[in-house]
Amino acid sequence: MTDWGQIAADRLETIARCSEPGPGVTRLPFTPEHGAARDEITRWMKAAGMNVTLDAAGTLVGRTGPEDGPTFYMGSHQDSVREGGAYDGIMGIALACLAVEKLANEGVELPFAVEVLAFADEEGVRFPTALIGPRALAGTLDPAVLSLADRNGVTIADALGDFGCNPQGIRKLARSPDAAIGYLEAHIEQGPVLECEDEALGVVTAICGIERHSVVFRGETGHAGTLPMEGRRDALVGASDFITTAHIAGLEEPELRVTVGEVQVSPNVVNAVPREVTLTLEIRAPEDPLREAAGALLTRKAKEIAQRWGLDLDIGRTYHQPAQPCDPGLRDALTDAVQANGGRGVALASGATHDASAMADLCPIAMLFVRCRDGVSHVPEEFASASDMRAAIETMAAFLTTIDPTPEK
Amino acid sequence: MTDWGQIAADRLETIARCSEPGPGVTRLPFTPEHGAARDEITRWMKAAGMNVTLDAAGTLVGRTGPEDGPTFYMGSHQDSVREGGAYDGIMGIALACLAVEKLANEGVELPFAVEVLAFADEEGVRFPTALIGPRALAGTLDPAVLSLADRNGVTIADALGDFGCNPQGIRKLARSPDAAIGYLEAHIEQGPVLECEDEALGVVTAICGIERHSVVFRGETGHAGTLPMEGRRDALVGASDFITTAHIAGLEEPELRVTVGEVQVSPNVVNAVPREVTLTLEIRAPEDPLREAAGALLTRKAKEIAQRWGLDLDIGRTYHQPAQPCDPGLRDALTDAVQANGGRGVALASGATHDASAMADLCPIAMLFVRCRDGVSHVPEEFASASDMRAAIETMAAFLTTIDPTPEK
Repeated sequence: MTDWGQIAADRLETIARCSEPGPGVTRLPFTPEHGAARDEITRWMKAAGMNVTLDAAGTLVGRTGPEDGPTFYMGSHQDSVREGGAYDGIMGIALACLAVEKLANEGVELPFAVEVLAFADEEGVRFPTALIGPRALAGTLDPAVLSLADRNGVTIADALGDFGCNPQGIRKLARSPDAAIGYLEAHIEQGPVLECEDEALGVVTAICGIERHSVVFRGETGHAGTLPMEGRRDALVGASDFITTAHIAGLEEPELRVTVGEVQVSPNVVNAVPREVTLTLEIRAPEDPLREAAGALLTRKAKEIAQRWGLDLDIGRTYHQPAQPCDPGLRDALTDAVQANGGRGVALASGATHDASAMADLCPIAMLFVRCRDGVSHVPEEFASASDMRAAIETMAAFLTTIDPTPEK
Repeated sequence: MTDWGQIAADRLETIARCSEPGPGVTRLPFTPEHGAARDEITRWMKAAGMNVTLDAAGTLVGRTGPEDGPTFYMGSHQDSVREGGAYDGIMGIALACLAVEKLANEGVELPFAVEVLAFADEEGVRFPTALIGPRALAGTLDPAVLSLADRNGVTIADALGDFGCNPQGIRKLARSPDAAIGYLEAHIEQGPVLECEDEALGVVTAICGIERHSVVFRGETGHAGTLPMEGRRDALVGASDFITTAHIAGLEEPELRVTVGEVQVSPNVVNAVPREVTLTLEIRAPEDPLREAAGALLTRKAKEIAQRWGLDLDIGRTYHQPAQPCDPGLRDALTDAVQANGGRGVALASGATHDASAMADLCPIAMLFVRCRDGVSHVPEEFASASDMRAAIETMAAFLTTIDPTPEK
């Protein structure tokens, strides 16, 4: 009996070598490493009986089944962060190819076409944008991004051209929503939940919405020896009060993620009272009202805290992106498939953004999370086991056989 | 009647022009600006009838009275921080010269010699050391510091040579403690206490001791979206808890100064949980047991806080300098002189270090603080009024007439 999980593990070990030298995997879009990975993925797709093309946005597309008509999509991205792991993104492509190969081996013919999409750029490391591939398919790509450049001044348009793509063709990539049945992306969890739950697989409820705030506390500096404590307006004390308050607010609601990740202190010297602290507040939640309520609460708290410590405050939302719920029908079907394979079908939100976020503008989406060791990702230690990947491939293949080819929207 | 305060104000306005171009005063040791200031101070000393010499450590010395025998010292430093004010340091020299000139004008002959000392380097801005002048007089100067260089590679020895001093002569500068009656330094307060007390002058009780600790909280980083709040080991949350705790501990004891001035966060990006935070804790107090108790308390608190948030902790004292109490006899005499002049004689500690800290190794010390506007120093806005300086000159002159020439130690 074919061990699909071991094949996945072997393939991921091989393609991990398509990387810049150094620890872990560094594979940026439209580089020689990407070219080597593209050739490897082409072999995976062909082994599954798929017809392979490279589209104008750099997405490698493997297609099987009817030449036109309803199509179900699966996929993920081939690129990595710098010194990242061998699973983030690329595993989703490998598992999708093997699910198709498994069905083909078993002689299963689906009543719709399946496409596996190997997207070029999800991490946003080389260029100051991301998700060109899925946005092009969804018809939401702003062509202006093609003139964005990497730090060597190479634009996306130039990089695509050198990679063998015709950027002029991107406008024609948009697929018809009427023929798009849905999109399934398998991805390592990048968090500790499934490991804690002792489950190989989880079904994503939604991709969290994100909002970011810039928070500036301003007080008065002075000599750390000559300025009495009473009457000090120490910006760092107010900022610290806010940081613990924000963390505790996050702890009170299991679905929330509240993080102060970046702090700048001025003047930042040992013997001066801090005059100004600028910090970032990031809030994520699978439901927008929950996130927005947390944002409003913490804005109020920041004002109270500034007043308490005699500080001035600037707080403003600098970025936001709504939550992207997974399709209830596809989610139920995926949960059924996980349970038929012996899993519990743990439901969890995705705190990170994925290609699925952009594919949601084209069709209903579903995501399958695979347990990762120690909950770590974006590091060389990133790891998912062959047996967990086997469960994922079996689940994905079974899920495909339950799909109704009538597009759900 | 001579307005000594206005003369001080005029002289300080003139010498403030001995500065690099730019806002406020920038006068570093052994520079052309220092040379110009030295010529100006020479005129002040000569106007007071003093004999003027430049010693091997760059201290300009004005002497009046008997050629040898018991000597009372007054003085401060001529250098400034970058873009500092027109009073810090230089005012103490100006007031000392005018106190001597006032007594000479009044025909008062003191039964001891008086020397006014215009030290070269107290701020430590140009070279990575400070207080060469008073240490040379006290016999505590480590000759190795002469080979320390500024950022252009010029050593202190070279700079002294170019300034017309013979660094070889520094070893011979040490004065006999037996003939050193005491040292009085007038200085702007550099804090808000006298302004709050509505008093022109204050009598310093002690120069605060200082200790500095390096505190490192270490947790675990992770993706701000995928890592649930529960179970996070966020180093910044622990550090923030510690910063507010340290500040509140400082507030509970009026004589303490507790400051976290410098913070480094790693990785310090908007969407990653902070793994490590390094911060500086500085504690100052006029009494060593008070400071040491605060250091021990905050070390215990840091351990409790690290445990509470699941963090590892490194904490260690990186620097300490004991408190330097002012001489009780000189302090009483100075308080009497302030009160005879109509002041209350407010007693306060000096949170900052001064030339007096080093002179304390030679003889008993006293310090007179002059009110400064808005409590600010080391900025172009630094200001002391002519009338407050008049009160200081009158007080210093009167104080000198009460001194017993028998050395107090």
